[in-house]
Order: sequence, then C-alpha cells, then structure tokens
Amino acid sequence: MKDSSPTPLLDRIDSPADLRKLPADALPQVCEEVRRFLIDSLSRNPGHFASSMGAVEIIVALHYVFDTPADRIVFDVGHQAYAHKLLTGRRDLFASQRTLEGISGFPNPAESPYDTFVAGHASNSISAALGMAIADKLTPGNEQRKTVALIGDASISGGLAFEGLNNAANNPNDLLIILNDNEMSIDNNVGALHHYLSELSTSLGYNRMRKKIYDIFRSRGYIGDNGKGMILRFNNSIKALVSKQQNIFEGLNIRYFGPFDGNDINKVVKVLGEIKNMTGPRILHLHTKKGKGYSPAEADPTTWHAPGKFDPSTGRRDNSGANAVPLWQEVFGSSLVDLAANDDAIVGITAAMPSGTSMSMMLKSFPDRTFDVGISEGHAVTFAGGLAAAGKHPFVAIYSAFLQRAYDNIIHDVAIQGLPVTFCIDRAGLVGEDGVTHHGLFDLVYLRCIPGMAVAAPMDAPTLRRLMLTARRHDGPMAIRYPRGRVPAESATPVPASECAPLEIGRARQIRHHEGAKTAILSLGDSGNESLKAIEILANEGIKADIYDMIWLKPLDDKTLADVAANYDAIITVEDGAREGGFGSAVAQWLAANTTPDSRPKLITLAIPDRWISQGSTAQLRSLAGIDADAIANAVREADRDQPHHANAE
Amino acid sequence: MKDSSPTPLLDRIDSPADLRKLPADALPQVCEEVRRFLIDSLSRNPGHFASSMGAVEIIVALHYVFDTPADRIVFDVGHQAYAHKLLTGRRDLFASQRTLEGISGFPNPAESPYDTFVAGHASNSISAALGMAIADKLTPGNEQRKTVALIGDASISGGLAFEGLNNAANNPNDLLIILNDNEMSIDNNVGALHHYLSELSTSLGYNRMRKKIYDIFRSRGYIGDNGKGMILRFNNSIKALVSKQQNIFEGLNIRYFGPFDGNDINKVVKVLGEIKNMTGPRILHLHTKKGKGYSPAEADPTTWHAPGKFDPSTGRRDNSGANAVPLWQEVFGSSLVDLAANDDAIVGITAAMPSGTSMSMMLKSFPDRTFDVGISEGHAVTFAGGLAAAGKHPFVAIYSAFLQRAYDNIIHDVAIQGLPVTFCIDRAGLVGEDGVTHHGLFDLVYLRCIPGMAVAAPMDAPTLRRLMLTARRHDGPMAIRYPRGRVPAESATPVPASECAPLEIGRARQIRHHEGAKTAILSLGDSGNESLKAIEILANEGIKADIYDMIWLKPLDDKTLADVAANYDAIITVEDGAREGGFGSAVAQWLAANTTPDSRPKLITLAIPDRWISQGSTAQLRSLAGIDADAIANAVREADRDQPHHANAE
Repeated sequence: MKDSSPTPLLDRIDSPADLRKLPADALPQVCEEVRRFLIDSLSRNPGHFASSMGAVEIIVALHYVFDTPADRIVFDVGHQAYAHKLLTGRRDLFASQRTLEGISGFPNPAESPYDTFVAGHASNSISAALGMAIADKLTPGNEQRKTVALIGDASISGGLAFEGLNNAANNPNDLLIILNDNEMSIDNNVGALHHYLSELSTSLGYNRMRKKIYDIFRSRGYIGDNGKGMILRFNNSIKALVSKQQNIFEGLNIRYFGPFDGNDINKVVKVLGEIKNMTGPRILHLHTKKGKGYSPAEADPTTWHAPGKFDPSTGRRDNSGANAVPLWQEVFGSSLVDLAANDDAIVGITAAMPSGTSMSMMLKSFPDRTFDVGISEGHAVTFAGGLAAAGKHPFVAIYSAFLQRAYDNIIHDVAIQGLPVTFCIDRAGLVGEDGVTHHGLFDLVYLRCIPGMAVAAPMDAPTLRRLMLTARRHDGPMAIRYPRGRVPAESATPVPASECAPLEIGRARQIRHHEGAKTAILSLGDSGNESLKAIEILANEGIKADIYDMIWLKPLDDKTLADVAANYDAIITVEDGAREGGFGSAVAQWLAANTTPDSRPKLITLAIPDRWISQGSTAQLRSLAGIDADAIANAVREADRDQPHHANAE
Repeated sequence: MKDSSPTPLLDRIDSPADLRKLPADALPQVCEEVRRFLIDSLSRNPGHFASSMGAVEIIVALHYVFDTPADRIVFDVGHQAYAHKLLTGRRDLFASQRTLEGISGFPNPAESPYDTFVAGHASNSISAALGMAIADKLTPGNEQRKTVALIGDASISGGLAFEGLNNAANNPNDLLIILNDNEMSIDNNVGALHHYLSELSTSLGYNRMRKKIYDIFRSRGYIGDNGKGMILRFNNSIKALVSKQQNIFEGLNIRYFGPFDGNDINKVVKVLGEIKNMTGPRILHLHTKKGKGYSPAEADPTTWHAPGKFDPSTGRRDNSGANAVPLWQEVFGSSLVDLAANDDAIVGITAAMPSGTSMSMMLKSFPDRTFDVGISEGHAVTFAGGLAAAGKHPFVAIYSAFLQRAYDNIIHDVAIQGLPVTFCIDRAGLVGEDGVTHHGLFDLVYLRCIPGMAVAAPMDAPTLRRLMLTARRHDGPMAIRYPRGRVPAESATPVPASECAPLEIGRARQIRHHEGAKTAILSLGDSGNESLKAIEILANEGIKADIYDMIWLKPLDDKTLADVAANYDAIITVEDGAREGGFGSAVAQWLAANTTPDSRPKLITLAIPDRWISQGSTAQLRSLAGIDADAIANAVREADRDQPHHANAE
C-alpha cells in the first residue's frame, strides 16, 4: 500500500493559499489525507469526530473556491470545523486542541484570522454572516468580499436561524448559505423542517413532468423570460407540487440550489464555482454523511459524535475510563423516570440534548410524555409554560450555557405566571474541554433576580433526587443546577424511592462541624465537595473550619445565615459560577442588610472571576479560577491569620 | 339615529356564554357596540387602540364558536385583546385598565380564567398554546378541549413563533393557529415573511388554472383520492406556482386555510365552524384592518397604535401633554444621528421599535445604515455582532424587557469576542402603565455578570450624549440604559457637538456636597434625579447627605468607592432595577471585599424589591417600590439616626 501512495499533500498546506495552488484533481487526495489525519489525531486526542468527518469536502471546497481569509467562512456550531483548522495553519497545534493553553475545539477569532466568528451555540451563523455581508456592501473597497455561512440541518431549525433567513433578503447582500444536511443532529433531528428537508430530495417523476407543465404555463403567459432565477423558481415550484412539499427558502426570497452530494468534492467545487459570483442571498443544499470515510462512525454517528479515544484500526473505543459512579445527568434521568412512574402530570422536555442530559431515559420509558423539541431552547421553555398552564408539571433539561437562549421565556412565559416548571440545568459551572462558549457560569446570577424563582444546587446524588421531588411538590418555578461529570462516589448508591423525602425549600445543612471553629465555609452545590477536600488538607495544619452546604441560592436560608454571622469571625463562600451577582454577592448583600458593622464577620468570596475562561480540564480550570480545594484551603488560612484574638484564646 | 337603534346587546353580555345565546345575525351589532365602547372608553382612558379595533370580529367569533373558557384562546401580544376583556366580564372594570389596582392592559391569568397565558412579549402564543393542546391530549377527560393561538403577522416573524410552528406537527394535537394579518406592526413590518404573506393573497388566474393542472396531475396518478387535505395542499401548490410563492406553513406540515376577510364576522364565524373540529394542527389566515371602524385610525394606524386621549367625534388627539422637554429616546435618536453624520462606521439596529426607540431618526437620515429587523431581538444582536466583526460599530436600540430575548446573543455573539457593539437600552426600570411584562428591571443584573461588558446609566441628557460618544470610542461591548419618559428639564438643552466630550469609563461624579455630611447617596442613572429631590426635602430638616452620580455599574469606580467608604458613616444606593444582584449588590460586594467589617459604612440598598410589579403610573410604582425621593429621604433619615456620635460631634 505505502509504496503506491501518491506524494503527501497535506504536509505542505500551511494555508488555504497553498491549497489553491493545487489542481482540482488533487482535491480528493487532500480530503483523504485530512480524514486520515483526523482519525489518527482524534483517536489519541479526543474531540468531535463524526460531524468533522462529514464536512471535509465542503470545507476543502470552500477554501479552494473562495479567497479566504478575505472571503469569510462563518461556521455554525464549530465542532464540524476541524478540517478548517488543519487547512489554516493549525496542523501542528491540532493535537493541543481542547486542552489548557492549546487551541480551541471551536472556531475562535482570537486564534486565527480564518476564524471569523464564535460558533459554540447553534443557529447564529446566518445572522452573523449577514452582518458581515452587509457591512462589506457598505464599506468602500470591501464590496467584492464574499461571505459564506455553513449551517447544519439541525442548527437551521433554531429560531435565530429563521430570523436570519427572514432578514436575509431585506438589504442588499450576496450572502451564500450552505446547508450541510446530514439528517442528524447530536441526537435524532426533530421538527417539521427536518421532514421537509428530507422530502426536498424527493423528486419523483420530476424531470418528465417539468417540461409539460412548463409549456402550459409559458403558453398562458404566467412565465416570462426573465432569466435563470425564474426557471429555478419554476423548477422548485414543480418539485414542490410533485413532492407535495413547498420550498420554504424560496418563500423567504432566498434562491435555492440543490440538493447535491456534499461528499463529492468535484461536484461541490463545481457548484460553488457556478454560484460564487451570483448576487443576492442564496442557499446551497448539500447532503453529507456523518462519520464519512470511517465505517464505524458511519454506522453509528451518535456514538461517534464525540467518541473519546479509540483504536483507529479496529474502531474499538477506549473504555478504560468506564466508571460505576454515575454521571450527574444519569442521576437526573433515572430520578425523573422514577418520579414519572407514579405521576402522570410529569412531562419531560429537552432541546436536542436527550443523550447529553439523559432525558433519553424518560424518552425511552415514557415516550408520549417526553418532548425533544430540537435546537429550540426558547420554544422548549414556553412550551413547558403552556403544558404547566394546562395542568402538567414539566421538567426541562437544558445545559446552563444554552439556557441563556431561553432567558426571556423563563421570565415571561413561566415565572411571571408562577407556573410549576422545573429547570434541570445540566453542565452548570466550568465544563472543561468545550471551553468558553460552553461554561455555564451565569445561571445563578440571571435566575436569582427573577421573583418567585427557587434556585438550588445539590452537592451529591441523594440531594439531587430529593430536590427533584421537592420541585414536583412546589407550586412554582424552580431551577436545579448541577455540573458536568460524575457525582461524588460515596453518594452514588441510589436512594430507594421510599426513603426519598422532599427537602425544605430554603434550608441549608451543616456538613462539617469542629468545636471552636471560627471560620464557616458556605458552599453551593458541587463546591461542597471541594470544601470537604479543603478541610482534609487543613486538618494536617490544625486549622479548623465548619462547612455549610447551602443547597439553596434562593430563597437564602436566613436562619442559617443569622447563626453563621453570629458565631463565626469569617465566612467563605464558594460557588462554581460568576462572581458578579451570584451566591457570594447574595451573601454580601444579606450581611450588609442584616448585620451591623461591629457584629459582621469578614467575608471571602470564591467564585469565577470576571473574565472569559478558555478550555482545559475541569480540575485545571477550577484551580485557575480559584474555586478548588486548594483555593478554599488558602482562603481558610487567610481567614485564620486574621483572627489573632481567637488564635490567642485557644 | 338614536331612535332607530336596535336594543343594546353588549350591556347584557357578562360572559361568553351570554354571547353564545345570541343568534348569529346579531353578531354584527355586537361588534359595532364593542367598537363604540372602545372608542368611548379609550378616548378618555388611553390604551392600545388600532390593533384592538382591528381584532374585534375575530375575538367575537372565537368566543361565539368556541366554548371558552373550557376551550382556550391564547393571545400573542395581548394589547389586541380589549374586545376579549369586554366579553369576559370586565366591561365595568375596563376604565380602570392600565392603572394602579386596575385591570391589566394585557391578558393576565391571575385576573380571569379566560386569560390563558401572559402575552406581553411577542411570538410566544404558538409554543404556549401547543403546550396546552398537547397537555389536553395527555389528560383523560380533556381530550376534547380546543386551543386557539391568535397571532399577528408581525409576531409570527419572530424566531420563537417559528420554533413553535416547526414543532407543531411533531406530537398529536389539534391546535388552531389564527394569523391576524393586518400587514402592519407598530411600525412597518419587515422581513421576507411579510412579503410572503402579502403575496399569499395574490391568486392571479388561479381558478382558471386549477382545474386544468389538477386533471393533468390526476391522470398521471400524482394525486390520489385521499380527501380534502390532499386537495387543499394541491390548491396551495398551484397557488404557489402561479404567485411564485411557496406555502411555508404547508411546508411545515400545518394545514393552511385562507386568506379570508377577518373583519367579516359572518365569514369568520362560518370558517371557524367548518374547521373547529378538524384534527391536527391548522393555520387560518385572516386579513384585518388596523383601526377598523374608526376612520382616523384606519388612515394612520401607527399614530393610533396608542394615541392617548382623543375627541371621539373629531378624532383630534389631546396634545395638552405636549412638552418641549425631549424624551430620553429622542436624545438617543438625535445623538445617534449627530454621531453618524461624521462617522461611516456607525450603523443603527432595532427590532420592530423604530418609533419607540427613536431609531426612526437614524432611519430617516441614514436609511442605508439603519436596520429594523422586525420582531427578532436575537437576530438584531447577532447581526450586530457580524457587522462589528466586519468593521462597523452598531448601536442597537431595544427595550430592556425585550432585550431579555437576546441574552445569549449578547454573551455568545458579542461579548465573548469583545466586539464593539453598543446596546442602547430604552424603557429601563419601571415603565408604568404597560405593567409587569414591560418593566425593564433585570438588565443591570444580567449584564453585570458578563465579562468585558461596560454598563452605564445617565441621569441627564448631556450624560447620555457623552456616553454614546464614549461607547463609540470604546473597543468593546457597552450598554447604556435609560428610562421611559422625559429627561430632566434642566438638562434638555442639547450639548453642541463641539462641546460633547467622551467620559472616562468607570468614573463617577459627585453632584452634591455638603460640608460635614456623613451619608453618601450613590445613585445610578435616573435615580440621581430622585436623589436630588430627596436632598431638597431634607434641607428643611437640616439633614445633610452628599450625592454621587455613579454613571457606571461596570466597571465600578473603585476610587470613588474607596473615598466614600473612608469618609462617610452610611452609604445609600439607589437604582431603578432589581435588588438581587444589581447595583446595590455590587456595592455590597465591593465593600465586603475592600473594607474591614469595623471600618465599613452602613449600607442601605434601595432597589426594586423581589416581587412582580403590576401597572400604574411610574411615579406610583416608584413610590411602591421604595426608590423615589421620599424613600431616599427616609433612608437618609434612618442613616442619620444611626449616627449619634457624629450628631454629637456637630
């Protein structure tokens, strides 16, 4: 095999300009080499696999046909963009992807001039690219720059993408939208648009019919001779008629081309060349195959979305990390199924994250009562409001960072009405390798200001289960936030349903007490586990601190806070969330309002500092942010140093 | 005239059940009486006029055909719902609408069982109604309840509405969506969907063509005999072909009926009767006329959207409130035009609020650089991000409460990239008569936690102008929030452009100093004006306090705070925003972090308390919330009482 291989090409492509020097017939080899590189690298340095493999030809073709970076490619959900990173001078850095100080797993404008926009949350590419395309039309000298938005079939179902499409034809621009249709989001794609796209491909009897209808219409003067656009629209109308489907894009005044095979590099290059210089907004519909070129991934793209390490030759995935300790999401998923088993009012909702949130467990057990609404966080929450208004109790599971999409829906469609909707907020806090766009740092802040919203965070599996039961019994909106990863091992044994009692809303608990301790650690959620580790560290030094697992950010536990303020010289708050306005802020406000200067303990607030945090392991990032056990131990030491009279008294 | 009038009917309709007892031929009279009632009442008690007048027949027909409240009507942007309030037992309360302790100007489930959902922010009705419709299918005994969403042509262009449509056909339900198409939002409607809807009405040559094409298709077996739905779809396809438009709704698998005249009560009742019991999601497209039945409003529906008091016989509007002092929004609008005149990089964006934000001034002066994207707040912000990424400096003007819709867009599409987008947040704080859904209380909180976001609030017109210039010179995202209403009269004279200098970011200013004062009022934005009034009140009592106009919530002015903490015994913060996590919270955090408990001044935080606030005049609501001059004066007195040693020292 090796001997007959052609001269490698990828090694010599240090920028798209190098790619563009190649003859078109060399491109299949480039695609092949990109795939081999991805398989080799990702088998050792895990990342998003299946979608990146499927998009290779589109990306190679875009950089070949367009003059990047003068011409702009705007990715949508950038984990399909690995080939783009390889072709834009980051081949040697690729192995550092998704690690601390390495390159990001998503496009990042701070990293490369070829990365035109942030692309961590779905559906933003059309709006952003439209902004660029219109800006260029308004900027002398830039009129000829081209902008291409590359969006997947799942992302285009989001409301933001629709708003972009609806505005695309409003102002002069030559935006090209490429719909990378792989008929598959992370989980199954949902929604009418999905079925619609599948049927666009059906063109039963199309060619035979076309001529006949065309002649009839033309003879009656319904069709004039105003060029190719007219014919195109006519063709789409006929196609709509035959397939009983309507072309939505043409309805929105965006010229539609396709569908074509997006894994056929020659075809994609040819079509792009043909439509590249057309004016006005256009959409090109390309079909691709997730995992393309690697048969295990083609066969099971969901598993291969982000497969972890694997053996490239066998496709065997590395399960050495397998662990009997459940993930937080799994405790959520199984608890929801348990609750729903005896309670018909419970319904489950997620927005294209059934696997990621383990809502899949509810979906499997109670399919009629479980709704995956696709990439539509806003709809997910308003839909939940409607279900609750009609007597159901929805549990809505969405990642913290994506729930930002539904902020107004939480306020307007749930909280103002005091509706009993429970928000189960997964991936809260620092999430690790996915980096800046995926950390869930703001939920505590943006939920705390909403009147009537209860906000809780468990530090262990039994508390999560009990909070879910509490939420079900609560006649109002409630949020429960928990992190990515596994629950503490010692809490992993499921609580039997018979022993699962609801918690008192707004009641904290003391989880460590040492006689004479003058410092109290108030932790929220998972930070309680870091606090326990900090106490172990300090035990060797003879330094004492008590720990309170606050559980509730809202309502705050006034009684516990009053006790703590009266009995300790220092309070340390710890949270896995933004400092400005979060849990520590709430305690500072409480102390200012409820204590006098001479009776007030010192307050040290440990929280995520007010800057953007990139990717790395969760442990690394917690350390950097100063919210891990070491940071807590340091804060206790600092508090201890400031307590000379107590030190003397002992 | 009077003698020939028929017996009045509306007086005897105390619930929809009464309406349903009438014969169908009495309905035109009911509509006429509803209109006369609205004209009479709204001429004296101002409210939303034109849209309510246009929707009379639809609302009468819905209550006549459907069994409300068992059947549910879900309004979208409820200021069209006045006829609904009149028919559902609130005729006698109607004059109290939009006033303190009166009924709300929008549907409010707490007010009536006929008000099924909150409807202050556009585009939520389809998702909410879908939730209800599906809940009923899942609830034994409720399967026959019907749900109708009534949505306008502007609202349906929002991304949330699209997400609802995209999910409508996913699960079993019989949702009926009524599209109230009056071809006109508050301002002109925009977007491709708008043009699309207009063209749906065009059916040039449609009837003559239909039969011929149908025969061809049928003979070739493309059309079977599977009932009415098939024919309907066929008809729509032909219509699409002829009008060169595609039926988007059919594309989303929602059966489409219409368009029909929505101001023809007989027609609407007939059509509703025909489709009422059909199964599956359906959309009925009705054309109505804004202001219908009152010629001044028909002629100028924008002015008559919310006309204030007027003379019903002449249509002359009451301009007695006319005022030479400009509105905050007007200072924004003229300042933007001034800035843009010499700066091609500046572009303006709003989301269906050009009149309400005065972006209309920019639109008039620089139409090529001004974008009204329709009801699409998320797109507005992401589009701004794209423009900024390509070298423009967008000023995005959106009401505070509606900007909640774009929260993730602010974070993900602007702030993470540090893009220079300026958010001009109108209607911040308590807005008065529009009530709970329209108050802009959370912006300070939800923006403060975003890294790199500068957040400012002016207390007078010159400061707003200078902040806008500051924002333009700032290479990063910045938010400027200001209230509804007029600027302080003494600040109303425009600053000549030559004298308009940028402000130092994060620098407060002292605006009142009294030798020996031991209390400092730190005010943010417009609250500075209330603080000045408080000082006047206190002057008579010999109580002194200094005032600092903080201007910046973020970054906080460390230097001023350090001075204040060192020199005063008490600090009072005042803000027109939510208490939990806002400006007062930031000061509490700052004091906890930067002062020792025994040297720390007492802190009193005046902010909107943690509960929902209904409608009333802004002055009434500020008083209720405890953030007006009286409340500030009381806080100063309280602080003064707590300072015995200083009182002694003087």
